[in-house]
Amino acid sequence: MSAVAARENAAMRICVLSGGVGGARFLQGLLSVAAPEDEVTVIGNTADDIWLFGLKVCPDLDTIMYTLGDGIDAERRWGRSDETWSAKAELAEYGVEPTWFGLGDKDLATHLVRTQMLQAGYTLSAVTRALCARWQPGVDLVPMSDDRVETHILIDDDDSDTGQRAIHFQEYWVRLRAGIPVRGVLVVGLEDARPAPGVLDAIGAADVVLLPPSNPIVSIGPIVGVPGVAAALRATAAPVVGVSPIIGGAAVRGMADQLLLGLGVPVSASGVALHLGARSRGGLLDGWLVDDQDTPARDAVSAAGIHARCVPLWMNDPTTTAALAQDSLALAADLAAVGTPR
Amino acid sequence: MSAVAARENAAMRICVLSGGVGGARFLQGLLSVAAPEDEVTVIGNTADDIWLFGLKVCPDLDTIMYTLGDGIDAERRWGRSDETWSAKAELAEYGVEPTWFGLGDKDLATHLVRTQMLQAGYTLSAVTRALCARWQPGVDLVPMSDDRVETHILIDDDDSDTGQRAIHFQEYWVRLRAGIPVRGVLVVGLEDARPAPGVLDAIGAADVVLLPPSNPIVSIGPIVGVPGVAAALRATAAPVVGVSPIIGGAAVRGMADQLLLGLGVPVSASGVALHLGARSRGGLLDGWLVDDQDTPARDAVSAAGIHARCVPLWMNDPTTTAALAQDSLALAADLAAVGTPR
Repeated sequence: MSAVAARENAAMRICVLSGGVGGARFLQGLLSVAAPEDEVTVIGNTADDIWLFGLKVCPDLDTIMYTLGDGIDAERRWGRSDETWSAKAELAEYGVEPTWFGLGDKDLATHLVRTQMLQAGYTLSAVTRALCARWQPGVDLVPMSDDRVETHILIDDDDSDTGQRAIHFQEYWVRLRAGIPVRGVLVVGLEDARPAPGVLDAIGAADVVLLPPSNPIVSIGPIVGVPGVAAALRATAAPVVGVSPIIGGAAVRGMADQLLLGLGVPVSASGVALHLGARSRGGLLDGWLVDDQDTPARDAVSAAGIHARCVPLWMNDPTTTAALAQDSLALAADLAAVGTPR
Repeated sequence: MSAVAARENAAMRICVLSGGVGGARFLQGLLSVAAPEDEVTVIGNTADDIWLFGLKVCPDLDTIMYTLGDGIDAERRWGRSDETWSAKAELAEYGVEPTWFGLGDKDLATHLVRTQMLQAGYTLSAVTRALCARWQPGVDLVPMSDDRVETHILIDDDDSDTGQRAIHFQEYWVRLRAGIPVRGVLVVGLEDARPAPGVLDAIGAADVVLLPPSNPIVSIGPIVGVPGVAAALRATAAPVVGVSPIIGGAAVRGMADQLLLGLGVPVSASGVALHLGARSRGGLLDGWLVDDQDTPARDAVSAAGIHARCVPLWMNDPTTTAALAQDSLALAADLAAVGTPR
């Protein structure tokens, strides 16, 4: 009997592979249903990271840290609450590009601390730990890698000799609002990246591995693409359960559609599951939660060897978010009880 | 007849060696009395510069730029008007030192632009020019050197083996408010610093060289200490006229007293003049303005070979500030008419 099934008796080690906004919200729910003695390790996507104005910005790590540390702007769902924007306005006055990325003044302090520590020789893991000492997120937040990895998006460009151009993911996401076709996704540095200390151990020692409804291409994709991570996921004794980021044929955050289409992944609850694949067949998933309205997707997912279950996926408030986290743990527990493939 | 005397007929080239607050105010007055075609070059002290939170901060250059560009906080006399302090509060929340130096959010943008350009390989001169493209200070602002020079103050420290300790000038000035004895002044890097491009030319080509009432030890001292600058001052055809930073036996900005005492310079209008010395005797000054209340100092200064004149030195408002600038130019013109030593 696994630790998941024996939940009454022992602390549970939960490992979560997370992007930014969706992952952070899911984690809020998870912490609300987890026992105090449970240990949650979050492996955060760092392929969204970007150097801006000489500062290292880690949007996903910060969104997780701010959300769980009660510092997030609840409306925007990124950046700091009660933020001011003086420096941003001044940078624009100086004519410094880019102007499309909003760094608030409070947020700037985080990037200043991070950059100063990185330049002093600390790893991103160590820096993240130091920042979390303040935020006390209630999880062990670990970047997927201490090495620089950056997602670039290939878009059409008539002015280019090749007819295409690669831009940083943030430029595609924030400036272009993911509004034009994706011709390819280049995760620069991924092949040579090493998992950050603790990443493989967290997966190997986990009782449950969860994939929140984060973007499968630019959030989950880079994490599992770090050499060694997919193998660790395939080898772990823990069940691996994911939550569909697609509800009713549309991305929960609408802008993800282009990314899926660009890689030929159907924008559907089953499409993403099949893209990730079944552990029993060399993929990554044991279980997959789809929304109640996507009941038809269940058969296709099950046929691919992934145990699918229909539950409400919308994380509208703390109650529904907690319920989704509980449903994820429940599916994992059921899968653990029957044994997971290794 | 020099160009100073021929002021009606030709544009004048004025070269000013300046520290921060006092120099900036003097420059405001100078610009208000200068003809539109006059060219003012300001050689700014950079020995106050400090790296904070990974950013290069140049207090004197910024004070000049903000003051002449109408962006200064008029009350504080440093930093930006209508400033916000969100990042500073956050840095303190992170427990990052130092907490005693106030970097406002708008001000931060300046340091971000500067640091990013420096790290991209631009010189401080080039960066200063780029920043001034926004501020349009009405002068050509040139750092004394593109090389790193930093003033450190030697203070007593019972915990040290030597009984002394060197701290950055900003720590002495801002954190300790210059409240303890100065045992020595170490201008680190000065001996190996090279004058920034334009510095020696500006002195050599000047019709007038002015020393505003800036701190003689930590503002004027480092500028004239850059190898080649003192020689250029001694060689220029222009009269060199200074304004006493001491009025009635006290520093205009009171905190300078300790610095003078620490180097054995009497805190008096004549003490500073004698410290700088007469050009005719291997020093730097031809003329020296002392306040009306320091009339007795005139004799000692004159005896040292420096032409001293009593005028009101307090720069209380635009009118008195302009009058002081005019008095400086007038003394220079009179000295030029009789010829200056070379």
